[in-house]
Amino acid sequence: MSDLFEFGRTVLTSQPFSALLGTQLETFEPGTAVLTLLIREELKQQHGFVHGGVVSYLADNALTFAGGSVLGDSVTSEYKINYLRPAIGKRLVAKATVVSSGRSQAVCQCTVIAVGDDGERTVAVAQGTINKVEAKSA
Amino acid sequence: MSDLFEFGRTVLTSQPFSALLGTQLETFEPGTAVLTLLIREELKQQHGFVHGGVVSYLADNALTFAGGSVLGDSVTSEYKINYLRPAIGKRLVAKATVVSSGRSQAVCQCTVIAVGDDGERTVAVAQGTINKVEAKSA
Amino acid sequence: MSDLFEFGRTVLTSQPFSALLGTQLETFEPGTAVLTLLIREELKQQHGFVHGGVVSYLADNALTFAGGSVLGDSVTSEYKINYLRPAIGKRLVAKATVVSSGRSQAVCQCTVIAVGDDGERTVAVAQGTINKVEAKSA
Amino acid sequence: MSDLFEFGRTVLTSQPFSALLGTQLETFEPGTAVLTLLIREELKQQHGFVHGGVVSYLADNALTFAGGSVLGDSVTSEYKINYLRPAIGKRLVAKATVVSSGRSQAVCQCTVIAVGDDGERTVAVAQGTINKVEAKSA
Repeated sequence: MSDLFEFGRTVLTSQPFSALLGTQLETFEPGTAVLTLLIREELKQQHGFVHGGVVSYLADNALTFAGGSVLGDSVTSEYKINYLRPAIGKRLVAKATVVSSGRSQAVCQCTVIAVGDDGERTVAVAQGTINKVEAKSA
Repeated sequence: MSDLFEFGRTVLTSQPFSALLGTQLETFEPGTAVLTLLIREELKQQHGFVHGGVVSYLADNALTFAGGSVLGDSVTSEYKINYLRPAIGKRLVAKATVVSSGRSQAVCQCTVIAVGDDGERTVAVAQGTINKVEAKSA
Repeated sequence: MSDLFEFGRTVLTSQPFSALLGTQLETFEPGTAVLTLLIREELKQQHGFVHGGVVSYLADNALTFAGGSVLGDSVTSEYKINYLRPAIGKRLVAKATVVSSGRSQAVCQCTVIAVGDDGERTVAVAQGTINKVEAKSA
Repeated sequence: MSDLFEFGRTVLTSQPFSALLGTQLETFEPGTAVLTLLIREELKQQHGFVHGGVVSYLADNALTFAGGSVLGDSVTSEYKINYLRPAIGKRLVAKATVVSSGRSQAVCQCTVIAVGDDGERTVAVAQGTINKVEAKSA
């Protein structure tokens, strides 16, 4: 396991909310992050689909990790998400990549896929800005 | 309690993910929805702030409820969120209002506030499109 | 005329594209900027409405000016716009305000109104991030 | 020349604002649209770069055309754009593709590239929702 992947897993493990949801880090390489989540009952909304808030959490977090893979410790400054279809299946996979990065900021895009017995479907696309957390400045 | 508020509370109660997080419906009137959430350890990220995914879940849900207050059963089609500062305190309050609505779609804006012992601070602003769920179409 | 307004008007005048479109600065105060534009034939699209690109240009520019009113020389980093209805009438008015600002960045919101003989209508709402242009960095 | 391309060129030609800017349709196939624009002095802002409003106009229009390639006559409902670096060079190229589409709506993404003597650079990425213009409904 690479040092970078180790760093990513440490960050994810230290997020109580990600532990509550059960998020796993699948890939963490310079410019790319893949997060996965098993779909279970308590992550759903009133129509039986995964709650949009779960999908956007996963996209948001994958965007931050992608940015963090080139910037180091980072936070999402802003993002936008389009939901494409209801999220149904066994597992969500959010893959985010860095489109452009500078010294303190990266713009990333993310695709969220739902994987079920009948294959996989893209359920959302997101785009956002990730900011490096500076050691001492606010 | 109004019929509308009753409808809103029924929808919220039937969202397992909102139950998991502990979201409460504070206001639900034509054009306005206010959702609140007690901040607790398991909703946080690695720096001790509320996880961005929780803030955006609450904004997303408040946007959907605001749209739903004029459209009936609804889902978020897309939204965008800007995080303004770390979410710290005792409680999150997301207030969403309808900016414009038609027969099947509404555009809404939302402000998320963190309330603590030392007052309240706006931690995020969001804007998005809510679509009415049609009875028979996909 | 205040020094700030004078600064704003100088920036706007030095934008060849704003001169091409005929944009005017109506208000420029700390935290607020209002830009206006007379609607004319060559700003329209194929259905006879003002082209969305004109509406978003005006929103984008108003967001930058609002941010610039507190940051000094600035550029838009990113923004999102929702078109609410066709822009018809005599004049567009874009009013942008600062929601939150720090040393080098501001988050702003903007409302674009179309004014005609029969009153005024909100045609778009936008939200974005404005970055201060640092003197020496890229 | 295909019927689809002919349709696209007719729409573009009937947009007075696109004529004012000089936009050309380079590609128009099911799911893809490429628009180009020669950079000239009057499209710039105060720092000598192409005005953000021009970049976002081109992205917006390319998104609409991409959506229109599968939906027919269409308008942009909303979009978001991240500016990545100053737009400098001889020519802008906006390439938009359909990510997902239904009967009346498509979600599209767009990349805007600036082409100069020293090669090409991605200057912006955008993502948005395109709505089909229904013949009789509002």
